[in-house]
Amino acid sequence: MNFKEELKKYIDLINDELIKYVKTNECPEQVLNEAIGYSLMAGGKRLRPILILSTYSLFKDDIQKSFKFAIAMEMVHTFSLIHDDLPGIDNDDYRRGKLTNHKKYNEATAILSGDSLLNGAYKLIIEDIANSDEKEKSKKINALYELSHGIDRMIAGEYIDTEYEGKQISSEYLEYMHENKTGALIKSSVKIGAMLAEASENDIQNLSKYAEKIGLAFQIKDDILSEIGNQEELGKPVGNDRERGKCTYVTKYGLESAQKMLDNIINEAIEIIKNYTKNSEFLIELALYIKNRNK
Amino acid sequence: MNFKEELKKYIDLINDELIKYVKTNECPEQVLNEAIGYSLMAGGKRLRPILILSTYSLFKDDIQKSFKFAIAMEMVHTFSLIHDDLPGIDNDDYRRGKLTNHKKYNEATAILSGDSLLNGAYKLIIEDIANSDEKEKSKKINALYELSHGIDRMIAGEYIDTEYEGKQISSEYLEYMHENKTGALIKSSVKIGAMLAEASENDIQNLSKYAEKIGLAFQIKDDILSEIGNQEELGKPVGNDRERGKCTYVTKYGLESAQKMLDNIINEAIEIIKNYTKNSEFLIELALYIKNRNK
Repeated sequence: MNFKEELKKYIDLINDELIKYVKTNECPEQVLNEAIGYSLMAGGKRLRPILILSTYSLFKDDIQKSFKFAIAMEMVHTFSLIHDDLPGIDNDDYRRGKLTNHKKYNEATAILSGDSLLNGAYKLIIEDIANSDEKEKSKKINALYELSHGIDRMIAGEYIDTEYEGKQISSEYLEYMHENKTGALIKSSVKIGAMLAEASENDIQNLSKYAEKIGLAFQIKDDILSEIGNQEELGKPVGNDRERGKCTYVTKYGLESAQKMLDNIINEAIEIIKNYTKNSEFLIELALYIKNRNK
Repeated sequence: MNFKEELKKYIDLINDELIKYVKTNECPEQVLNEAIGYSLMAGGKRLRPILILSTYSLFKDDIQKSFKFAIAMEMVHTFSLIHDDLPGIDNDDYRRGKLTNHKKYNEATAILSGDSLLNGAYKLIIEDIANSDEKEKSKKINALYELSHGIDRMIAGEYIDTEYEGKQISSEYLEYMHENKTGALIKSSVKIGAMLAEASENDIQNLSKYAEKIGLAFQIKDDILSEIGNQEELGKPVGNDRERGKCTYVTKYGLESAQKMLDNIINEAIEIIKNYTKNSEFLIELALYIKNRNK
């Protein structure tokens, strides 16, 4: 299987599991459920759940054992996007080429859909833990603890982003913001995949460094696309960051330097992953995909 | 110790634990932390954590073993109030006599403070579970699962409340809304206290019925106070529900009938609890306190 086929396999798996979740979710409020499904199925890249599945499969074959966490991670990511788009935060009308949740429904529905997704992610995993044997229980509790830390850091990063809109921030603080806002859940995804697969502490550490690199690269590429991307491919307006006075890698360092930083960081990520295991081809290709994506 | 002294003892215990939490919370963003502390310490009645502690103490003396869940429950409740007050939902300026979170800070901070409190509640409990022995682990996972269900139902109830503003709803649906919006966390609190204390299935069922009654009574009293309460004591404007066209027990049945329903339900709650254990004096008095409170 080449990279594109493998990527598609993962995305199909994840979408199938998400559809199953949306269909069986017991929330009795039909419109709230519909709004949750609308945002969950709005065609994301599924990067975070892919990282859980592909990191897990570096060590073990039975990747269905990491499905629940993959789904929960995408639910958490979707919650963060819905709240991020709200009028009180970024006030975005479009996401992935579709109306944002509060534009499609209304603000109250968007706030509560986000809340429900965050809570639903925990509910899904805790039910799974309650039904696991002792050994699996401990492993999954540790993975869930990692998730809760990742979410905490993601929210802190989001807060910094909001707070510093229109202000200049130091390069250290810009990096720190992104380590939290985008990086935290990407790193947690890789760590959770490794933890569930019972990787050694040393492997988890190495993979975390890889995750930090691709997390930062992902954000730099986001900043580049926000400046020069194709609006139709991106599914959202281009140039928004600059208009809002957001401090990004492009507004701070210029386009050329940002592109160079991106190239270097991806090379560093590949160096870490290629020396460490024979099964890392997919994760090498994924790093390149993050660099070269158009949306 | 009489009821008032015991109530104060519980509130002091809970406030001490909440202050400890706010002080040691590791979120590096000072203003976000401050906003979380502001709403957590804004002087709530602490009904839900009191229910966890007092139900636990029906069966066992070491109530400090239920502190973590009590704190987490109050964090969840505070999250729900912050989001409920947002301009996109109830658009309230005052809560407990103080400016609401988004009025004191801003909307983005309020959204993210709420998100952070919900996530922080889970983080707190999951860390505790990770550090517990096998037997405690299973018990606490089941209690956390109950909490996640309670939150899910609370969010659904909140959604119904928003959706039906300005519309007439059936008495069954009004009751169903409140069973979820206010009742779910009150019921979960009682169940969690009993589960942590290893109460029998039969006791948990009985206590759940008591919790359903006081949850409904709490809401009816809320509706009455919203109509005829003292604005200064309540700490928020009176008459808001009617102005907004909210369907409440008072707007639907009239003041006198609502008061009669309240009396009956509290009597039913007391009937359940008094026949069932000798240590239930506090919970009997608590039911009366819910009926007679002025704020």
